[in-house]
Amino acid sequence: MSDNWLDEIKWTEDGLVPAIAQETGTGKMLMMAWMDRDALRLTAETGHAVYWSRSRGKLWHKGEKSGYQQVVVDMRIDCDNDVVLLEVEQKGGIACHTGRHNCFFKQLKDGKWVSVDPVLRDPVSIYKK
Amino acid sequence: MSDNWLDEIKWTEDGLVPAIAQETGTGKMLMMAWMDRDALRLTAETGHAVYWSRSRGKLWHKGEKSGYQQVVVDMRIDCDNDVVLLEVEQKGGIACHTGRHNCFFKQLKDGKWVSVDPVLRDPVSIYKK
Repeated sequence: MSDNWLDEIKWTEDGLVPAIAQETGTGKMLMMAWMDRDALRLTAETGHAVYWSRSRGKLWHKGEKSGYQQVVVDMRIDCDNDVVLLEVEQKGGIACHTGRHNCFFKQLKDGKWVSVDPVLRDPVSIYKK
Repeated sequence: MSDNWLDEIKWTEDGLVPAIAQETGTGKMLMMAWMDRDALRLTAETGHAVYWSRSRGKLWHKGEKSGYQQVVVDMRIDCDNDVVLLEVEQKGGIACHTGRHNCFFKQLKDGKWVSVDPVLRDPVSIYKK
């Protein structure tokens, strides 16, 4: 398969592109992370979301430790070719490293960010060997 | 109202944060753009999405020319405090400057990005005086 589709992405100076994951069916926003060229290609090739971890400086196969993989149903880019949107099936129903369904659990209420969504599983148990 | 909630955002070196807009009701992803501190504060204060236009280098009151404003229903941040999620009512049902409902109209199909969503209104007529 040609790599032309990867050349069309408007990568940042660091060679990254923001990637948004949305849950299929519910439409819930799960998370936003970053992809480099390899991550995006691997996501398309394997059908599982692969990101670039900026904090760890390496490829991040989502769910590699937790088992909470994201199976890609649909992949899109925006009008400017600088944002990727994944529609995914979220394995285990937990996308966030805090053990919540998704990463957007802090809501602005009366001038404060308030956690409004429950922890579904203790992250200590998610990441222990 | 205190500005502490703005201080909690993990701004980029350029003083920006990515902001995702999702349509209330349908759950459709509309767009991703960037906000600076003023844009985020104005979004909360006015209840209408305000972004920072990186290309124009100034505040961008979404819909100021087109009339297609975004009325904010809910505002959240993610676990790392570095992504904003807006739930909005999209006035006129058009979020994209191409005249489409949203910006994510290019789908990866057989190794190519293919436009799969219709133009609802000619952008020339949207932006003419």
